[in-house]
Amino acid sequence: MKIVINQDKLINSIQNVTKAISSKTAIPILAGLKIQADHEGVTLTGSNSDITIESFIPKEEEGIQYIDELIPGEIIVHASYFPDIIRKLPSETVEIEVDEQLQVTIRSGNSEFDLNGQDAEEYPQLPKIQTDSTFELPINLLKHMIKQTVFAVSTSETRPILTGVNLKVENNELHFIATDSHRLAASKLPLSIDQEKFPFEQIVIPGKSLNELNKILDETDETIQISVTDNQIIFQTEHLFFLSRLLDGKYPETSRLIPEESKTIIYAQTKNLLQAVDRASLLARENHNNVIQLQTIDDKTIEVTSNSPEIGKVEEDVTINQIDGEELKISFSSKYMIDALKIMDTEQVKIEFTGAMRPFIIKPTDHDQLLQLILPVRTF
Amino acid sequence: MKIVINQDKLINSIQNVTKAISSKTAIPILAGLKIQADHEGVTLTGSNSDITIESFIPKEEEGIQYIDELIPGEIIVHASYFPDIIRKLPSETVEIEVDEQLQVTIRSGNSEFDLNGQDAEEYPQLPKIQTDSTFELPINLLKHMIKQTVFAVSTSETRPILTGVNLKVENNELHFIATDSHRLAASKLPLSIDQEKFPFEQIVIPGKSLNELNKILDETDETIQISVTDNQIIFQTEHLFFLSRLLDGKYPETSRLIPEESKTIIYAQTKNLLQAVDRASLLARENHNNVIQLQTIDDKTIEVTSNSPEIGKVEEDVTINQIDGEELKISFSSKYMIDALKIMDTEQVKIEFTGAMRPFIIKPTDHDQLLQLILPVRTF
Repeated sequence: MKIVINQDKLINSIQNVTKAISSKTAIPILAGLKIQADHEGVTLTGSNSDITIESFIPKEEEGIQYIDELIPGEIIVHASYFPDIIRKLPSETVEIEVDEQLQVTIRSGNSEFDLNGQDAEEYPQLPKIQTDSTFELPINLLKHMIKQTVFAVSTSETRPILTGVNLKVENNELHFIATDSHRLAASKLPLSIDQEKFPFEQIVIPGKSLNELNKILDETDETIQISVTDNQIIFQTEHLFFLSRLLDGKYPETSRLIPEESKTIIYAQTKNLLQAVDRASLLARENHNNVIQLQTIDDKTIEVTSNSPEIGKVEEDVTINQIDGEELKISFSSKYMIDALKIMDTEQVKIEFTGAMRPFIIKPTDHDQLLQLILPVRTF
Repeated sequence: MKIVINQDKLINSIQNVTKAISSKTAIPILAGLKIQADHEGVTLTGSNSDITIESFIPKEEEGIQYIDELIPGEIIVHASYFPDIIRKLPSETVEIEVDEQLQVTIRSGNSEFDLNGQDAEEYPQLPKIQTDSTFELPINLLKHMIKQTVFAVSTSETRPILTGVNLKVENNELHFIATDSHRLAASKLPLSIDQEKFPFEQIVIPGKSLNELNKILDETDETIQISVTDNQIIFQTEHLFFLSRLLDGKYPETSRLIPEESKTIIYAQTKNLLQAVDRASLLARENHNNVIQLQTIDDKTIEVTSNSPEIGKVEEDVTINQIDGEELKISFSSKYMIDALKIMDTEQVKIEFTGAMRPFIIKPTDHDQLLQLILPVRTF
């Protein structure tokens, strides 16, 4: 194998695939990065037990030559050395040559590295996925839905299924749902095709996989191709291939958690409320659950308070747009409230309460595609 | 005590004094931040066993009013809550009021915090230093000399005196010297007053103190006032007071370590050499001492190499300006070399060797105020 390749392009691809590589892997060869050259270009691969990422660098694209010389072949290089080496090379052009003893020679300017490679034959083969179960989403929309839900997955392995985001199709809509059983985040969008033709009814994608995918994808309105099999999901753009395993098991039915009626509704400025809750949270850190109180004062004011006997207390009157319904005094985790308000994409929010002991929901005022639910804490 | 004060100005002062505050202090009151208001303005104080920092906010300066209301008094507030609270307040003006039960009320916009304060009487008194032992330095020059030396102090407490930077006056010059016994960094500047009139012959300032001082001081050509007593040093600008203890004990005589003659002299471009050494260091990380090799090739070329049998090897020819003297092959820590080259303030450096087993020195080519010494490693 021999390639003479553009340094920036190579660095960019390396950054993408190393997100899947961990030095703490049970399969030693997966601590390496796979380089594969064929006549079309160079493919880099990184993988762990959950995800596999491939990034392709074409020989030439839109009239720009990225690879000057190309003799096909493949090799595994040390993922803990190769990225830093490429990044620090002195010249914009990098030559990588592999000999029969799997010695990898990297040349750039006056610098020459000789690395011990590993046989690419030992690298696990990617499953060849044969499926017609494919749909498309604009990348910025996918990123948006990931960000609106993935923070709410459980970080505990007690119920592994809750560490994933549930994607399900219902009422001709695609739903993203995440919950750690103390709060829930749900985002949905109308399907452009008929529900019957959609490739799945429901799947659960590990939260970690979606976080990595979100990091790799640039904000763009181009679409991404999504394919699903029994136990894997593949996200694919022109030069990127991202495969994640799916979580086994049945995701809990969450719709019955969402109260259908409410007794108190508050309409507030998202940013004002977020900042007041953030300030109140400063004195709630000592309690592990970050509990703060919210109380209706009059029809234009709520009070946000927190009290930590050792440190002190905080009180803030927040002027709001409107309150409908009963008076209310409720306690909840400021962390969950901050998480929920941060991802609201509208200037105003509507918060629907059904009493101090029942879950409450936070919604944008302008649309109904997003819903956040928080369980209160009993303190009164 | 009551003050109504500008938020930004207060945040800035807090940032300075909290550098001296540690939550892990043996004296609990020192985990607090002292606020003291008198008719001239507000003074904040933070302190630990090594350093004390005071920052003063005047009522008014250059026609700008920073404090609107001022009733004298003093209080100690929680340093782990107060800074975040002030930073997150909604309005640009902050009111701080202390009642007789040491309750600290902070008001800003609609937000009100009530914190439990502590009696300022319990806070250790700063020693009132009476000394005529004072000299001045431009701040940017002081920062420059700190940066050129402080990285070379020892991080081990085996010989505590080496964790400090030695300041000494000799030949009508002020010297900054730091060594961890494997390398040495020295910077000097000519005195503007007669050596006999200088306030000390030699002192040792903890490296940590100088690092904090460097962070607090802005790059400016204004001067800083430096006073020295038996066991303390004070750096003082108009609104800042920085006190550090000095290290006890005799700093080793380092001048005899510096070779007086050399057998090989290399003149190189600082940046080229730094980058080549940095690349070679990539494969030297596995060895704890980061050892790389340097070898003269011809009168315009040196070769920098590193070899890690498990990972691979790197070779780089570095074109240099000139070599004088004998051929040379030497091994040393790439980390020490990178540290030394990074702080060189000239485009070219001169490296003087006295054989593979003797310390070598790195100097700027344009002036002799800076000297770095590195002990080689025996590998051949």
